[in-house]
Amino acid sequence: MQLQNILVTGRLYLAMAQLLKEKKINKNFRFVAENEVCRDDFFWADAYVGFRPVPCFEFGNIRWVHSLGAGVDAFLWNREWKEDVLLTRTVGSFGEQISEYCLSYILRDLQCHDVYGWYQSQRQWKQVAPQRLRNQCIVICGTGEIGQQIARYLRAFDVQPIGISRSGQMKPHFAAVFPMHQASEVLPKANWVIAALPLTKQTYHVLDEKFFALLNNASFINVGRGATVDEVALWSALERRHVRLAILDVVENEPLPSESPLWQHPNVIITPHIAALTSPEEAVDCFLQTLQRIEAGEPLCNKVDVQRGY
Amino acid sequence: MQLQNILVTGRLYLAMAQLLKEKKINKNFRFVAENEVCRDDFFWADAYVGFRPVPCFEFGNIRWVHSLGAGVDAFLWNREWKEDVLLTRTVGSFGEQISEYCLSYILRDLQCHDVYGWYQSQRQWKQVAPQRLRNQCIVICGTGEIGQQIARYLRAFDVQPIGISRSGQMKPHFAAVFPMHQASEVLPKANWVIAALPLTKQTYHVLDEKFFALLNNASFINVGRGATVDEVALWSALERRHVRLAILDVVENEPLPSESPLWQHPNVIITPHIAALTSPEEAVDCFLQTLQRIEAGEPLCNKVDVQRGY
Repeated sequence: MQLQNILVTGRLYLAMAQLLKEKKINKNFRFVAENEVCRDDFFWADAYVGFRPVPCFEFGNIRWVHSLGAGVDAFLWNREWKEDVLLTRTVGSFGEQISEYCLSYILRDLQCHDVYGWYQSQRQWKQVAPQRLRNQCIVICGTGEIGQQIARYLRAFDVQPIGISRSGQMKPHFAAVFPMHQASEVLPKANWVIAALPLTKQTYHVLDEKFFALLNNASFINVGRGATVDEVALWSALERRHVRLAILDVVENEPLPSESPLWQHPNVIITPHIAALTSPEEAVDCFLQTLQRIEAGEPLCNKVDVQRGY
Repeated sequence: MQLQNILVTGRLYLAMAQLLKEKKINKNFRFVAENEVCRDDFFWADAYVGFRPVPCFEFGNIRWVHSLGAGVDAFLWNREWKEDVLLTRTVGSFGEQISEYCLSYILRDLQCHDVYGWYQSQRQWKQVAPQRLRNQCIVICGTGEIGQQIARYLRAFDVQPIGISRSGQMKPHFAAVFPMHQASEVLPKANWVIAALPLTKQTYHVLDEKFFALLNNASFINVGRGATVDEVALWSALERRHVRLAILDVVENEPLPSESPLWQHPNVIITPHIAALTSPEEAVDCFLQTLQRIEAGEPLCNKVDVQRGY
């Protein structure tokens, strides 16, 4: 497939314009803010590059859509896809970034930062033994690229990470992987449960009341997609101490409305979807590599299976 | 050397008594609280096992002293040692524990926990990009076992750790090691400086005004010994922003007196010497292995060079 006219939008459009200009790519580009994209652009462009479809998005003459994020639910969830349009996603250091995010919160908890912060404010020299990461049972829901990277980092600390996936197929860096229907064999002993699931028809609210009821005072981290969690069930699991602490980088409605009670739950930590951010450099590199492979007819490692949704 | 009468004291004496009883060791033990050790014990015992000499400590008939901690300055600093007494120290998971401690504070900072905590309290969904560990310049003062372990963990995050030691001799896991007199080549670009030094005549107040003046808004972590730092110089470096943040697990006077201004400095985090704790199991394992090797006349990996002080 040859592509000539490329529409770039989303929060990185200016930074990408700058970087692509320096690289002198022989294509026609339009770099446009999301709220300035108009109908004509979709008939001019062969390719759409952005984090999500703008409100007035239509397929027009577009034959390739490249997502600047790793997740593509913004393009596929509750939307119709046009069959012959290629969808690719950005592959970058998301797994590494998310691993550092998860480890930062796990280690902060195991090292009792908040307890020691309190003692310091009281000028109290009082020992409480930190816990070792290697003694934690950590379950990762989702054994794709992100889940595997988290497992890889945990291995460096001698953790034996356990995966949960639809199939239960073994994946690199995990000590074991269980299918979702056998989750009851591992969840009750988990100290930490990390959700790294894409949002698809299969994963919508898959972390539900039944799921959370299996936890015994575990800490829960969501670095996947907010809508994989039934937030009412999570709230009730927090109240019943199935969940001791919830660290949510993603929520079902983003940005989280200021009236949401989640903001003030004493055992909930909210971060604004920052566990993995696409940098302009990574965005441009992945976009250009994908473009070059598409035009050369080479296989793509970042092609999205539109039916599966990731 | 054969040893028959062993005096065990310090905060682990009861736990060690229990574990040693289960192992049915054919030796005579006295397990005594530190404040109940008396003069007679030192003439009864061949061996003294504890974290430090009790106030009434004397060598008596003791031929072997085994430190339950990794550091032995409690036995050697500003004290006379009896030449023919063997001094050994506990080798355990101290390096791993200290690495988790350091990483917990570094990642908390890079992941902006405190900023996000504030935004959450304000119900604000506001992105601030976390920083990647791999982009940090991290300098470790002290390239012994502890420093090497910290460097090993940092490598898992693609950090290139730089060491500073007296000799500048290259050590495993470091990207480079500089001698102390060339510290000015690396300290100005450090984002983090981790001190993991033993307390000896050479290291007393070695982290002084001149040292801190080389830092440019770096964060400083001390997991070695408090007295390696001139605390007046550290305070002034905090005021002048040579040091942005100081995380002190050790201080010159422990426990830190409640009137110390360090407790309330906004850019100082104090923890009560918990970055590496000896567990009863590790204490007993290392003690027994050392005992067995001494009696078998085998070489010891944990023998202290009393002259060097570590």
